[in-house]
Amino acid sequence: MGMNAEKLDQNAKPLSPDMLKKIDAYFNAANYLSVGQIYLYNNPLLKEPLTADDIKPRLLGHWGTTPGLNFIYVHMNRVIKKYDLDMIFVTGPGHGGPALVANTYLEGTYSEFYPNISEDEEGMKKLFTQFSFPGGIPSHTAAETPGSINEGGELGYALSHAFGAAFDNPDLIVTCVVGDGEAETGPLATGWHSNKFINPVYDGAVLPILHLNDAKIAGPTVLGRIPPQELDELMRGYGYEPFYVEGSDPLVMHQKMAATLDVVVEKIRRIQSDARQNGFTTRPQWPMIVLRSPKGWTGPKVVDGQQIEGTFRAHQVPVNEVKNNPAHLKVLNEWLLSYKPHELFDENGKLKPELAELAPRGERRMGANPHANGGILLRELRMPDFRKYAVDVPSPGVVVAESTRVQGNMIRDVFVLNEEAKNFRVFSPDETSSNRWNAVFEVTERASMDEIKSTDDKVSPTGRVMEMLSEHQCEGWLEGYLLTGRHGFFPCYEAFIHVVDSMFNQHAKWLEVCRHIPWRRPIASLNYLLTSHVWRQDHNGLSHQNPGFIDLVMNKKADITRVYLPPDANCLLSVTDHCMRSRHRINVIVAGKQPALQYLNMDEAIKHCTAGIGIWEWASNDKGAEPDVVMACCGDIPTLETLAAVKILREHIPELKIRVINVVNLMTLQQPGEHPNGLSDREFDVLFTRDKPVIFAYHGYPWLIHRLTYRRTNHRNFHVRGYKEEGTTTTPFDMVVMNDLDRYHLAGDVIDRLPNLGSKAAYTKQYLRDRLLDHKAYVHKYGEDMPEIRDWNWADGKS
Amino acid sequence: MGMNAEKLDQNAKPLSPDMLKKIDAYFNAANYLSVGQIYLYNNPLLKEPLTADDIKPRLLGHWGTTPGLNFIYVHMNRVIKKYDLDMIFVTGPGHGGPALVANTYLEGTYSEFYPNISEDEEGMKKLFTQFSFPGGIPSHTAAETPGSINEGGELGYALSHAFGAAFDNPDLIVTCVVGDGEAETGPLATGWHSNKFINPVYDGAVLPILHLNDAKIAGPTVLGRIPPQELDELMRGYGYEPFYVEGSDPLVMHQKMAATLDVVVEKIRRIQSDARQNGFTTRPQWPMIVLRSPKGWTGPKVVDGQQIEGTFRAHQVPVNEVKNNPAHLKVLNEWLLSYKPHELFDENGKLKPELAELAPRGERRMGANPHANGGILLRELRMPDFRKYAVDVPSPGVVVAESTRVQGNMIRDVFVLNEEAKNFRVFSPDETSSNRWNAVFEVTERASMDEIKSTDDKVSPTGRVMEMLSEHQCEGWLEGYLLTGRHGFFPCYEAFIHVVDSMFNQHAKWLEVCRHIPWRRPIASLNYLLTSHVWRQDHNGLSHQNPGFIDLVMNKKADITRVYLPPDANCLLSVTDHCMRSRHRINVIVAGKQPALQYLNMDEAIKHCTAGIGIWEWASNDKGAEPDVVMACCGDIPTLETLAAVKILREHIPELKIRVINVVNLMTLQQPGEHPNGLSDREFDVLFTRDKPVIFAYHGYPWLIHRLTYRRTNHRNFHVRGYKEEGTTTTPFDMVVMNDLDRYHLAGDVIDRLPNLGSKAAYTKQYLRDRLLDHKAYVHKYGEDMPEIRDWNWADGKS
Ligand SMILES: Cc1ncc(C[n+]2csc(CCOP(=O)(O)OP(=O)(O)O)c2C)c(N)n1
Ligand SMILES: Cc1ncc(C[n+]2csc(CCOP(=O)(O)OP(=O)(O)O)c2C)c(N)n1
Ligand SMILES: [Mg+2]
Ligand SMILES: [Mg+2]
Repeated sequence: MGMNAEKLDQNAKPLSPDMLKKIDAYFNAANYLSVGQIYLYNNPLLKEPLTADDIKPRLLGHWGTTPGLNFIYVHMNRVIKKYDLDMIFVTGPGHGGPALVANTYLEGTYSEFYPNISEDEEGMKKLFTQFSFPGGIPSHTAAETPGSINEGGELGYALSHAFGAAFDNPDLIVTCVVGDGEAETGPLATGWHSNKFINPVYDGAVLPILHLNDAKIAGPTVLGRIPPQELDELMRGYGYEPFYVEGSDPLVMHQKMAATLDVVVEKIRRIQSDARQNGFTTRPQWPMIVLRSPKGWTGPKVVDGQQIEGTFRAHQVPVNEVKNNPAHLKVLNEWLLSYKPHELFDENGKLKPELAELAPRGERRMGANPHANGGILLRELRMPDFRKYAVDVPSPGVVVAESTRVQGNMIRDVFVLNEEAKNFRVFSPDETSSNRWNAVFEVTERASMDEIKSTDDKVSPTGRVMEMLSEHQCEGWLEGYLLTGRHGFFPCYEAFIHVVDSMFNQHAKWLEVCRHIPWRRPIASLNYLLTSHVWRQDHNGLSHQNPGFIDLVMNKKADITRVYLPPDANCLLSVTDHCMRSRHRINVIVAGKQPALQYLNMDEAIKHCTAGIGIWEWASNDKGAEPDVVMACCGDIPTLETLAAVKILREHIPELKIRVINVVNLMTLQQPGEHPNGLSDREFDVLFTRDKPVIFAYHGYPWLIHRLTYRRTNHRNFHVRGYKEEGTTTTPFDMVVMNDLDRYHLAGDVIDRLPNLGSKAAYTKQYLRDRLLDHKAYVHKYGEDMPEIRDWNWADGKS
Repeated sequence: MGMNAEKLDQNAKPLSPDMLKKIDAYFNAANYLSVGQIYLYNNPLLKEPLTADDIKPRLLGHWGTTPGLNFIYVHMNRVIKKYDLDMIFVTGPGHGGPALVANTYLEGTYSEFYPNISEDEEGMKKLFTQFSFPGGIPSHTAAETPGSINEGGELGYALSHAFGAAFDNPDLIVTCVVGDGEAETGPLATGWHSNKFINPVYDGAVLPILHLNDAKIAGPTVLGRIPPQELDELMRGYGYEPFYVEGSDPLVMHQKMAATLDVVVEKIRRIQSDARQNGFTTRPQWPMIVLRSPKGWTGPKVVDGQQIEGTFRAHQVPVNEVKNNPAHLKVLNEWLLSYKPHELFDENGKLKPELAELAPRGERRMGANPHANGGILLRELRMPDFRKYAVDVPSPGVVVAESTRVQGNMIRDVFVLNEEAKNFRVFSPDETSSNRWNAVFEVTERASMDEIKSTDDKVSPTGRVMEMLSEHQCEGWLEGYLLTGRHGFFPCYEAFIHVVDSMFNQHAKWLEVCRHIPWRRPIASLNYLLTSHVWRQDHNGLSHQNPGFIDLVMNKKADITRVYLPPDANCLLSVTDHCMRSRHRINVIVAGKQPALQYLNMDEAIKHCTAGIGIWEWASNDKGAEPDVVMACCGDIPTLETLAAVKILREHIPELKIRVINVVNLMTLQQPGEHPNGLSDREFDVLFTRDKPVIFAYHGYPWLIHRLTYRRTNHRNFHVRGYKEEGTTTTPFDMVVMNDLDRYHLAGDVIDRLPNLGSKAAYTKQYLRDRLLDHKAYVHKYGEDMPEIRDWNWADGKS
């Protein structure tokens, strides 16, 4: 078959009169059930005349987008059946929750997942009542909604989720409805470009449907109002072949949509079979659909003299005085009856069999498709033994390694071991190499379906490293990939992970809700590596310094989130292994990429990371006695500075008993009641003492440590150093100095808190002050750190 | 002049041979100074043969993007002079800092702002050394860079900033360079659509230049690799007329660029004069330029056998072993000499006069343009007397009003008073009405240059309410508007302000840095109204519940950020007035939009908000005695629940002495050393006592209050309730119940902390428990809150 073999005949009427009638009736049924959810408390089948008492006390929900979704859904049902498609449905305008609930109810999946919502009058009443009702269901296409992988409450991520679901799912078609308001968001606007990353041989297809209902909440939409010619160029510019289904007469629109979908599905199949038979050559122009239909389609035309259908006024509840205003009640009554419910449902409230037939069967139903409940499909990753990547650490603090580079070796082998399963990808905003995971490019490449040049490094249409310079895309793709039962990793510059704060929030909420839904299965964890972190921004500066993502993560539910700050490569390996095996969590790993001292051999590292916190005996000298001071550290750079401070103190005040504690798992600091990883108060007191000064050097904003420990016995003696928004493009050591986190400040902090040191204190303090002055003078002159800083190590380091 | 009068003659050679030579020399000079910044420590004019000692110890910076920026800059200088343009330069790839430093040095502005960096050999040496050097300047086009309003460290915001600058600046042209990597980000991808909001009569113009150097850090770019036809369609689809300047021979490229710019500038002028003479009719197709030039243009072609120029390898430091590898040193030497520095600078290191002549004069120089140092142009807003919008509150807790609706009246009059000055706009993601600022539409409209339909409400090409469904655009536009000396407001759903967390971070950093740059003047504050907040998501649910932005804000420097939670409308008015008058801050105001009880009359509100915290005497009964308990509240809903709890306690345990404290300004809780608004420990102890239980009902995540108060005397007795990620689509009261923040839980918290209450405690606790059970049963049955909850008020409320 040649290119563009499938041509759309604008006059085609593929639906027989009988089929047309049924499709329209099914559409009516879905609309009826949607309106019912928004309004009805009683009398679901309108067996009695509608009265104010039948109306819910609070009218909530979003009608405007709902009929368009219902329209699309029934037509998808038709092509699923016709072509036996494996399809899921991503609802960009997730506020159209009633549509998805209605349709999954009509197809029978809803009652299977929620037996109380049975396919009868009683069930329909409950279906209506529960919507946006206390103890019921949310208004959006949330995790509670069968078939959903996109809550759609926060707009913008529909396409990213859809493409993430399609990667490595060659038989899947993801229908993705995009609101024209949603299309104005940044993430969605760049999301169109995901087609550059879809390989027609190995990946599935995404069918975007731009739902051009012309309005958002209160204003017109950009894409709704630009000239059609511009819209066409825009979609072609994004690399799609647009098909238009435009109008408002349902009977005409059904024929148009059916004709278009036949062409579109055949086009997708032809693109795929071409590529699968002949191999990938050039990126295909994937089809997409522009559905231009009235907002609030089939709803009230005019209320109180104002046009509703086809305007922004249809966005939420289009007629809302129904309980008190008889004219409004009349409008609602006519609206409901316009769908002719008695022709749709039988006496008992069950959908008539000739309509029920329109839905696909079993797992072909979009509400029951296992891809939308990815935990069902999840298989464990084959994991290499992480011990074999160990850095040899014969003694602590002497050997130098780049932690993330070591970790990259392990990730490489995860690719190798799961090559056949094709269930693991890395998503990164153009930073895989920069973050030193270069080893992965020994076995895979960056994905691209566009032109590849000889000067390119490791780019291929079959690459499994997904690099688009969009943290939003990386996050959205990965979420879509995980939600459909696969595994992945997101290495990112620490500062710029804030770009996806809001997406993290939404994913954390989704995971939490799933824990309470019996039919949702746990999925693989979302794993972040945050590197190029605040303390090492040699090429950049203040804008690249931000350790605040951790603070955000700590606000989410304890059973979902974990934060690890491994101090060296072996700890990073151990933590990485743990995170990749975990389920249904969001794991944040913060680790440096620069050459750094290594402290623990693999055995020690495993023990240390399993506990999550511990005394470093080799660095402490308080064994057998009470310490005078506890020096705690969390994060690779704070660990280095703490150890260097310990050395200084030992040299200058040898009689001082210092205990060094390193924290890998930040959650250990929390109260056990707040977090399952939290140390008991007894354990905490044993480690941190009940009354000795604790100098705590922390990677991020220091207040977080206080927030985590304020209930602990010894909290009043905690003195925390961390990042306090001081920074610029400067040397690594100058960065810690600017934030008082350096060895000299830390040693000084200890002295300040030990009043009994006597005269030694004064001399040591002066020594520390002089070193800081030396440092400043040196870096301002030479532009690099003093040799004794650069070359410091634990074995023979003096500072 | 007719449409499209300006046609580009592809063979035009507008530059005379002499001019061509000079332009190329100027380009060379900028490139030379850029390379010098990255590499040279000594020997700035290469008067001596280059040796390893002349090289900086750490080679930092980004070469790849720099020559393209230099190329654009010199050509902009030419058209500024030729057409006497008022132009600023926005550098998307802000990592190309050396280019902007070089050019502002060449045009003389750099030395005017930084007299130590003089226009002589000594100055040039310092110019080179200071770059990315301790005590020197950052590597990006940061606030330190003259002429910059876009740091460009975090990529994506160039277009939004540029358009923000152009609004209401009819004579300004903003040249905006967009990296092809940057173009992959979400914010940038939707940023192109800003042209739908630019009115050619009243606004200035943005000239986007897409810098297609084909690569980002390590991979190819999407826009660099899509077929040219698609790129053209994409730009046309975005509404632009693209012009192409493509090639690599500088002499050919200069002619192309000059010819193109003449056409483009004339086109912009014609569009504007047409619209200004004949009135606005339809959105013009603004010109934009695609500059396709090699990455690392004019730099080393091949190093160690690998191609550098024209590849991603040119991104940072293209040849980096110069200090130790003589071959590398040779490459650098030849590279530097290729620019023929001795023909560019005189003996003393000053740019030769015939080249210096190419730059514009005075404020026409882009580094000296006052629009890029907006504080210079800032004029105070004319403010109405906020007292006149006061809600009449004869007695506390009885009158009901919608706080943000009241605030909207004031904002309306800000529009009126500053109509002529045209220096105030509102930016909102389609939520101005939803957030109940409807009053503003009495005097202005939503802006749109596209088709407006009869069914639209308040949309006009001259509208001053900027509604695009993109929090990124709202934030970026507003920042651009403020940075160029104007005023604005950003009302947003509380949850979705997290979409711009990272942009907030960057703006806060920018403001902080400016405080330490003597020539940067303070600008107007960035004011957020966060409403539709966590506690009132009747139509939505969990995804719309997130009070965490406050936590993010608290991590920034104390002199930049403020957070206010006014409990009622009069307080909101007072706070709004204060914020709009403030300078150089980021003010976050959290306030509800739903009908709510009003507590303070205007006089009381002013006093309360000025203090930021205070005892509500009318709600307390401890006067003249020590309180038994302090009930503190912060935020409108916590205040309501606290007052209702007080009522319950008074009724059941009349002898209990309760002190009620309300917090408006969250910063008052902090230590005075941490924040200038922080109460002294004495003041704090007087308010919160040294030892009485404090039940603190807070709007957001409860840990924040602990973080702010952990050093206070009485902190151990603080018991904080707030949002703990429990929620769904439910009734307002059920939301607080789910998070234990309701009146019954708060009253119970008090009882639990007063062991001496005796038997009364048991009965009251049981009463509270029963009320909670009643509540659950009621809402599950009726779907709305119990009448005694809905209708509760302070005067006669029983709960
Ligand atoms: C990021 C984000 N910002 C703002 C909102 C508030 N909001 C909810 S619906 C809506 C309008 C959506 O318009 P559109 O995408 O066209 O959907 P439809 O017209 O189909 O309802 C807005 C702005 C949101 N949900 N998410
Ligand atoms: C939001 C964000 N993500 C990642 C980065 C890291 N980064 C710095 S430069 C760069 C590549 C930029 O490529 P491009 O825009 O094409 O600029 P140019 O090629 O002109 O250097 C990246 C990914 C960043 N600065 N900002
Ligand atoms: Mg819409
Ligand atoms: Mg580039």
